[in-house]
Amino acid sequence: MMLADRHLWAFGVFAASNFVLTMFAAVITAFFAPAAAGSGIPEVKAYLNGVDAPEIFSPRTLAVKVVGCIAAVSSSLHVGKAGPLVHTGACIASILGQGGSRKYRLTCKWLRYFKNDRDRRDLVTCGSAAGVAAAFRAPVGGVLFALEAVSSWWRSALLWRAFFTTAVVAVVLRALIDICHRGKCGLFGKGGLIMFDVTSDTIAYHLPDLPPVIILGIGGGILGSFYNFFLEKVLRAYNLINEKGYGYKLLLAATISICTSCCIFGLPWLASCSPCPTGISEACPSIGRSGNFKKFQCPPDHYNDLASLLFNTNDDTIRNLFSAGTDNVFQISSILLFFFTSYFLGIFSYGIAAPSGLFIPVILTGATYGRLVGMLMGSRSTLDHSLFAVLGSASLLGGSMRMTVSVCVILLELTNNLLLLPLVMLVLLISKTVADALNANIYDILVKLKGFPYLETHAEPYMRQLTVSDVVTGPLLMFNGIEKVGNIVHVLKTTGHHGFPVVDEPPFSDSSVLYGLILRAHLLILLKKRVFLPSRSLFGIDVSKQFSADDFAKRGSGKHDDIEDIKLTAEDMEMFIDLHPFTNTSPYTVVETMSLAKALILFREVGLRHLLVVPKSSSRAPVVGILTRHDFMPEHVLGLHPSLLKSRWKRLRFGKTSLNKVFCDLC
Amino acid sequence: MMLADRHLWAFGVFAASNFVLTMFAAVITAFFAPAAAGSGIPEVKAYLNGVDAPEIFSPRTLAVKVVGCIAAVSSSLHVGKAGPLVHTGACIASILGQGGSRKYRLTCKWLRYFKNDRDRRDLVTCGSAAGVAAAFRAPVGGVLFALEAVSSWWRSALLWRAFFTTAVVAVVLRALIDICHRGKCGLFGKGGLIMFDVTSDTIAYHLPDLPPVIILGIGGGILGSFYNFFLEKVLRAYNLINEKGYGYKLLLAATISICTSCCIFGLPWLASCSPCPTGISEACPSIGRSGNFKKFQCPPDHYNDLASLLFNTNDDTIRNLFSAGTDNVFQISSILLFFFTSYFLGIFSYGIAAPSGLFIPVILTGATYGRLVGMLMGSRSTLDHSLFAVLGSASLLGGSMRMTVSVCVILLELTNNLLLLPLVMLVLLISKTVADALNANIYDILVKLKGFPYLETHAEPYMRQLTVSDVVTGPLLMFNGIEKVGNIVHVLKTTGHHGFPVVDEPPFSDSSVLYGLILRAHLLILLKKRVFLPSRSLFGIDVSKQFSADDFAKRGSGKHDDIEDIKLTAEDMEMFIDLHPFTNTSPYTVVETMSLAKALILFREVGLRHLLVVPKSSSRAPVVGILTRHDFMPEHVLGLHPSLLKSRWKRLRFGKTSLNKVFCDLC
Repeated sequence: MMLADRHLWAFGVFAASNFVLTMFAAVITAFFAPAAAGSGIPEVKAYLNGVDAPEIFSPRTLAVKVVGCIAAVSSSLHVGKAGPLVHTGACIASILGQGGSRKYRLTCKWLRYFKNDRDRRDLVTCGSAAGVAAAFRAPVGGVLFALEAVSSWWRSALLWRAFFTTAVVAVVLRALIDICHRGKCGLFGKGGLIMFDVTSDTIAYHLPDLPPVIILGIGGGILGSFYNFFLEKVLRAYNLINEKGYGYKLLLAATISICTSCCIFGLPWLASCSPCPTGISEACPSIGRSGNFKKFQCPPDHYNDLASLLFNTNDDTIRNLFSAGTDNVFQISSILLFFFTSYFLGIFSYGIAAPSGLFIPVILTGATYGRLVGMLMGSRSTLDHSLFAVLGSASLLGGSMRMTVSVCVILLELTNNLLLLPLVMLVLLISKTVADALNANIYDILVKLKGFPYLETHAEPYMRQLTVSDVVTGPLLMFNGIEKVGNIVHVLKTTGHHGFPVVDEPPFSDSSVLYGLILRAHLLILLKKRVFLPSRSLFGIDVSKQFSADDFAKRGSGKHDDIEDIKLTAEDMEMFIDLHPFTNTSPYTVVETMSLAKALILFREVGLRHLLVVPKSSSRAPVVGILTRHDFMPEHVLGLHPSLLKSRWKRLRFGKTSLNKVFCDLC
Repeated sequence: MMLADRHLWAFGVFAASNFVLTMFAAVITAFFAPAAAGSGIPEVKAYLNGVDAPEIFSPRTLAVKVVGCIAAVSSSLHVGKAGPLVHTGACIASILGQGGSRKYRLTCKWLRYFKNDRDRRDLVTCGSAAGVAAAFRAPVGGVLFALEAVSSWWRSALLWRAFFTTAVVAVVLRALIDICHRGKCGLFGKGGLIMFDVTSDTIAYHLPDLPPVIILGIGGGILGSFYNFFLEKVLRAYNLINEKGYGYKLLLAATISICTSCCIFGLPWLASCSPCPTGISEACPSIGRSGNFKKFQCPPDHYNDLASLLFNTNDDTIRNLFSAGTDNVFQISSILLFFFTSYFLGIFSYGIAAPSGLFIPVILTGATYGRLVGMLMGSRSTLDHSLFAVLGSASLLGGSMRMTVSVCVILLELTNNLLLLPLVMLVLLISKTVADALNANIYDILVKLKGFPYLETHAEPYMRQLTVSDVVTGPLLMFNGIEKVGNIVHVLKTTGHHGFPVVDEPPFSDSSVLYGLILRAHLLILLKKRVFLPSRSLFGIDVSKQFSADDFAKRGSGKHDDIEDIKLTAEDMEMFIDLHPFTNTSPYTVVETMSLAKALILFREVGLRHLLVVPKSSSRAPVVGILTRHDFMPEHVLGLHPSLLKSRWKRLRFGKTSLNKVFCDLC
């Protein structure tokens, strides 16, 4: 249509197809699986920290994520596919880890082995590594991404498992590229295993090239932290809109889609046509899907450089920006216009109700930023503009996502530019340092916005001034070793706690003794099975034989027993349960005088859900409290001790901190 | 001399210079710093696990390591420089971490900030990463090596710090290469930033190439585990010899040096001369230091391929083996002979009293093995033999060191062969899996041989059957909050413990209460400062103001106060010390019924040196024992409970294990 000069028709068809695809993605996300919106990396990160949000790994979310991501990316929205692929990988891993889906009758017997928290967590970590490996064809980068950006605990065995997963991804990808190398698979396989190859024999840089690179890094850090800042503001506004109902959600998506179409179609008219360079192998002007020289409205043998940037898939645009020897292809006005469009479209597109990633938009914006710096440097730098583009991507990734090793390896695997490694590392260091001084990294902001109780690695300074007994709240509920059914049912109905201490009281032991910790889920299973004793004295009958380990296996997400569903007769209520065989006899404990900061280290490093507090002196009950994740949240602690709020930002005296470090053993 | 056919003279000069260099390295190692022998990686690994062996990071060890490594590598011994560089990096980091060396008057005031265990450990981790980064010019590989092979604890902040360190290494290396690119720095800078560049446009492989690669991986795994097996046997024998005295140590080094010289000079006579290939750019035959076509005894226009392998630096030999398009340069008999020489020389050279690394010999042997497999495959594989050499190195590294991600990235950074990545990953996975089934990895074997009490990540199965009270031994020594000086001196003189519980007894508190844990080192400082109270009742005077945090800063290695050095009068002995201000009031504790396996997880994950055991019932003292690293060692546990020895190799029933997993929360 453009060739036939029917510009309005062309715009109509373009905008309409974008609109339909966006609305499809938004509708399925809003109505079937709201958890599939966004990139999914914050959810995965929170899950690996121990926060089990509902529905994030359900088969329905998986289906919507896959289909919705394809629709959203196809609809010319300025969103990426890497984040959704990470979520997809994590979903598949989680579903495998819970032994398939019983609801959809897809179960597998031997997968039951993974039905516990630790193995499922490991699987999800490997799944997210596989997602990145598939998105960027970067197997080593995938492992490092999982290590650096999403995981909260890391074991050496996990490194090896994640490596295994991504090796399988690499081999499968390579085999598929081999099968597809005749070009029958559409865009798949373009670029081979290295998506944006920038290898050239002429990569050479010397000491005088350092100042421009350092300036680029500082600028990238500032732009990256502003990216995070704007994104947070926009997401807060979007949250208010999205909360109002389905209609508003869809309206927002529709608005963004139309704006995007207008930008993509409207802006190239502002750019002037350039004559095609001579002596190039590529077609100029190109008419098909990809290519560096789009004709758009230009006369023959001319191309519109802004259209080349806007009217391509994101991958192709990045490849164009990364190609060497194209210093004169782009005009500075076009690059400047595209940079602003890409920067703000990326920010405004992320929060809509559709699967959308942040990685690709940031790489693209960064590459444009790098080219821009290269152009502004002009003759002051001998570096090729394509190298500036790679370094620009690194700087914006470092400034917004604050990853270092993983971004470095991913860029290496994307571009095959090993010789550039020292410069990439330098840029990442500078941009991360600059941005860290300004605000938090993007995933932490997103996790906080979603309200997940994320447990930080480090204790806040004011936690050193508190002991655990300062934050333990509420009456402590505990059970006897042999407890009346009625009591258990009452406690379970009136509280939402997930763990209860079990204490043996005198006639059954010498003194009041802490026996262990029992989980709500296990109590519900005991009540359901009705293995009751008629009286307290029949202690000693081993009831554990009536259960198999499988009965206590961790349920899949969304399948929780509920106390209200268990119907017991009045007679049952008067009977007893021997809790001993079902109690965890080795719960982790801290003395009540323990510093809150050190208790947090224990909680975090060992990966606990419940931490029992025992008294310092012997005159009291053997347990005085129970700590959960929520007790360590700054909101809770500062709510109990508002006076700390003033000192919150005040660092402790050097002497005190230093003495604390001295006391810290190896921690 | 060879050109003039004076063969015996040539051998004499060659063997004598090798002998002198080896003896120099052996003498300085044996007499000045025995801790500098070997690669040093086991020592660094043990230190990062919490084992502080004497002298391993002293300035003297550093000096001997650097000079000795240069001498040993120059003396044609079949040893590498990567391991010693890791140790060198760790030494420098540790010396910086203790604020310089007071003995050699090299101190720096602001470095005192790092005078605590945690910061010094982080610095040593970064130092070892820098060592690998410098050895292989592989900055990302260095970070991953530190993560995968040497560190026991890992924090996300550490990733970023290690990355920073290696980025500095990369930038400095790149700048030095830039300065040296006119070739005035000897062999430095040869190969540029990528030491063994194998980039070629023709790297192509398809599904039929997989079977040879899988066979290569399996073979590499078997050879690697045999390498570890033989190395352990040889080191045990060497230990017996080295223990007999300096004379035997030097004799051993001399024998190995003469044997090596004989092998290098004698074996090429067995190879026949080949005519020089036509149409190559390289000089043939070459006469200088390096080159792929050594003349040796051959007539003009002929070369000796075995001499090309043996009479080069290890780096050049690896480069020759990795070069593409050299399928016909080497004869199969030469490669076979060189493979066996390299395999066994590597094993026999490691244990002598001189700094020596394992990495380069293993890469070299692996490359030869890969070429051999490539030759045996003949026309069944279309892959170039140079690619087989790279894969062979990967397989032997995987089989002997069992690292995955780090080896993969190091090889990537050494060879720039990103397209080969899927095959390298596949080979590593196969060889590691095969070798893991046969024996432990080489560093674990070395750590065990050196007798370090290394704390494993995982609890042995029999530890699940024990509680902490089963392994606590000996009478527990504790102090009162205000303790008599005489008592403290007596306890410190009669025991070697490093930590003591502090308990407040009734007149000073309501009941017997655990106040905290005090360290031996801090008690010695208190005794040295003589801040004594005349009586028990003068409690309340704050004596802590007489000390600054710096007094309690961790001392450098080798500088421990000794109780015998502190002279106190009889009058002093009758006085008291208020221990309260100097006690760590938040020691980690476990209840005595805690499973030993779970206590080990706490000990390991939080990185403790002391773990207090508190009673389950209130009728006893507030502390019943103290656990240290030694209490978790299998030798100690099995010594106390010999009956477990039988069940040691017996896995627990599936049900039990599974229930344990269910009880494990997130751990």
